[in-house]
Amino acid sequence: MKKASKSISGFSKLSKMGKLKWIVENFFKDPELVMQELKSYWLKDPDQQRILDQFSENTISNFHLPYGVAPNFILNGTTYCVPMVIEESSVVAAASYAAKFWSTRGGFRAEVLSTRKVGQVYFSWTGSADLLTHTLEDLKKALLKDAKDLLRNMDARGGGVRSIEIRPIEGGDHTLYCLYVKFDTKDSMGANFINSVLECFASTLQHYANQRWAEDGQLEVIMAILSNYTPECLVRAWVSCQVRDLGAVLDMSADEFARRFKIAIDIARLDPHRAATHNKGIFNGIDALVIATGNDFRAVEANGHAYAARNGRYAGLSHCQVQDGNFEFSVELPIALGTVGGLTSLHPMAKRSLELLGNPDAEQLMMLTAAMGLAQNFAAVRSLVTTGIQHGHMRMHLVNILSQLEANDDEAQEISRHFEGKVVSYSAVRDFLVGIRSPKGSCVENSLLKSS
Amino acid sequence: MKKASKSISGFSKLSKMGKLKWIVENFFKDPELVMQELKSYWLKDPDQQRILDQFSENTISNFHLPYGVAPNFILNGTTYCVPMVIEESSVVAAASYAAKFWSTRGGFRAEVLSTRKVGQVYFSWTGSADLLTHTLEDLKKALLKDAKDLLRNMDARGGGVRSIEIRPIEGGDHTLYCLYVKFDTKDSMGANFINSVLECFASTLQHYANQRWAEDGQLEVIMAILSNYTPECLVRAWVSCQVRDLGAVLDMSADEFARRFKIAIDIARLDPHRAATHNKGIFNGIDALVIATGNDFRAVEANGHAYAARNGRYAGLSHCQVQDGNFEFSVELPIALGTVGGLTSLHPMAKRSLELLGNPDAEQLMMLTAAMGLAQNFAAVRSLVTTGIQHGHMRMHLVNILSQLEANDDEAQEISRHFEGKVVSYSAVRDFLVGIRSPKGSCVENSLLKSS
Repeated sequence: MKKASKSISGFSKLSKMGKLKWIVENFFKDPELVMQELKSYWLKDPDQQRILDQFSENTISNFHLPYGVAPNFILNGTTYCVPMVIEESSVVAAASYAAKFWSTRGGFRAEVLSTRKVGQVYFSWTGSADLLTHTLEDLKKALLKDAKDLLRNMDARGGGVRSIEIRPIEGGDHTLYCLYVKFDTKDSMGANFINSVLECFASTLQHYANQRWAEDGQLEVIMAILSNYTPECLVRAWVSCQVRDLGAVLDMSADEFARRFKIAIDIARLDPHRAATHNKGIFNGIDALVIATGNDFRAVEANGHAYAARNGRYAGLSHCQVQDGNFEFSVELPIALGTVGGLTSLHPMAKRSLELLGNPDAEQLMMLTAAMGLAQNFAAVRSLVTTGIQHGHMRMHLVNILSQLEANDDEAQEISRHFEGKVVSYSAVRDFLVGIRSPKGSCVENSLLKSS
Repeated sequence: MKKASKSISGFSKLSKMGKLKWIVENFFKDPELVMQELKSYWLKDPDQQRILDQFSENTISNFHLPYGVAPNFILNGTTYCVPMVIEESSVVAAASYAAKFWSTRGGFRAEVLSTRKVGQVYFSWTGSADLLTHTLEDLKKALLKDAKDLLRNMDARGGGVRSIEIRPIEGGDHTLYCLYVKFDTKDSMGANFINSVLECFASTLQHYANQRWAEDGQLEVIMAILSNYTPECLVRAWVSCQVRDLGAVLDMSADEFARRFKIAIDIARLDPHRAATHNKGIFNGIDALVIATGNDFRAVEANGHAYAARNGRYAGLSHCQVQDGNFEFSVELPIALGTVGGLTSLHPMAKRSLELLGNPDAEQLMMLTAAMGLAQNFAAVRSLVTTGIQHGHMRMHLVNILSQLEANDDEAQEISRHFEGKVVSYSAVRDFLVGIRSPKGSCVENSLLKSS
């Protein structure tokens, strides 16, 4: 057996099988087994697999995430069965619970507040800021003229450039500015469109400054790039009902529940430690739908979290009002999504997700996504202020532990009965399983202990 | 054909096939085809599929993400082949580029600064804050005593509760406090452990207050929950070399590159619009590895973004220094990960990812993850300050457009040649393809136009 080598040159030029072979031979104890396993995760249809491979680079296999659904989700009067891609226990269960709870209380409501996207061309400029301001109108004409070909198609779809401003970037050592450009990209996420237009603007700006402002100062374009922070691509989702219509929640009266629920939401607005976790729960729901529809969850996360920090302290994204016997719970955040272009129509499951949702446009998907975040938040905070979060988690946690310990069905049933209502930990379950398997305690215990 | 029904009761009680059947029959035009397709994505091994299904609820299929690798990634002197699960073009390519670039310049370096995790028990208290402070030591004893069984196993592994404080939650209408508890959870992410301990603490606290402080005020526990914000579970990664050793970067001299690179990093520290996008790029790399190893990317995102906002303005997470002829580029952020427990050992591909990395402990994985974020950021900002981001993206974008237009190999080659160095847009490629397919312009054009 040759010695394993952890370095390689020319890797990207190898075929997929060549890459796979090098990896299993140099990093795994049982190359043949791992090779078979990684290949077993390929899609059966080679054309579909090729599409997946082309999304990324150096691909050798696929990573599977469970695809589940939350049915009976009512938004603005329409009932959806919402696809969710998530590896975390109880997220789909929470969404389904919240969907059901609110389905008899008017359902979820949502509205898109605005759909502007943003991009910037950053530059340094040694001349006067006044000159920039005074020349802006003329500069704009030059920018739009040079980008005409790029803008044509988006203009035809009713989108395009909406405004161009010049803004100073304050606080640094350099005299920095940016062209701050607002876009409408209709049903596409629009990243490639925006970046192409901005790079064209950057080139025009540099050229314009070299030609017209050479005697007034020096301009240097630093970079041109869309912003994932889109505070004007904003959506709001909410639920509301009379407090008394909340009914008894577990053992808690409706009044008691509403009061404690509101305090929990307020805590997330006051304490960044809680806010991060609170918003994480909202994104559990949001990301599950974002991934299912072939959108980019990193962009959605960065956008939402930056928005959560917009007032100088990182805060929870949801709001609760309990007033005059009325309970209202809402979330407001920026979400930039597409329902055409990108992966939305290329990933086979993303296509099916959109079909399952009745082929929504981007604004409908924004609303559904925000509502799914709110649903998730409602279910999580409800658990927190009543039974505690572990009550629901424990059952899920137990299932995973039983998998890990390779308990058979009889053992799993006995263990589930025993731990009903009790705190589940890996060690407690393992110890109990040891007891079942070997009443006298013996080497079985040792072998189980070793495998922990 | 019976009328489609979008609502259902008892859905969660249906079998997997029953769920699938209801969905395809009520939401899809071609139920039989979609049924076959969704089933074709199931894993071949039914036991493995059952494990995946158990991660979540209401599962009907799997969602595939491409699994790629970035080879030759040197961290602290060791060479890794890093698994990346990502659907976005050019992220793996960027990581591979950065890995190669720095492999001849000392590689990536990283250190774990601290590993404390955090959880809180929130409560309202009508009595004096002094009483809480004075009784804390006695309360602590009671808390730890009641949680002894839960703590046993983690204590044995060298983890456990590290400190307990009482902190006021300021700014709201209520008189709120929290038990602020620090934990060490060793190589596990520890969410279930922390939440179980906190719920036990909550119960003890309520009991303690009812018994000992009944005459001094009223205490009401609101909720107990870990925090995803762990500013003391912190890791730093960096690269550095002499500026002249950067060499010429594309057409740019090393000095020029270093200067422009630093300005770009500074802009991300000054402008939240840029910071969100900048950090999004960092998380492109981080999340790809987090998912590949079966960790929870929503938790990692919330943590990092909340940290980015810790000084009152949302800012970029990376730093650049160019001083005395030296170039240093670093990132510092909190990342809470596990390499045992949870999905890390249950998801078949997560297990393989850890094996590919040589079964790292949690601290090693923290360092690798931070370094991967830095690698991504280096590659992105390098593109931005030199050729622009679209130069690299365009090739990837073109591949996706060619897929969408179902161009054959000959067409793809001709189109790729034509668009070399040009701006790629869907409409431009489509128009060019129309030209290839039908030189005289005809109904082909119309049919292609319709499908856009």
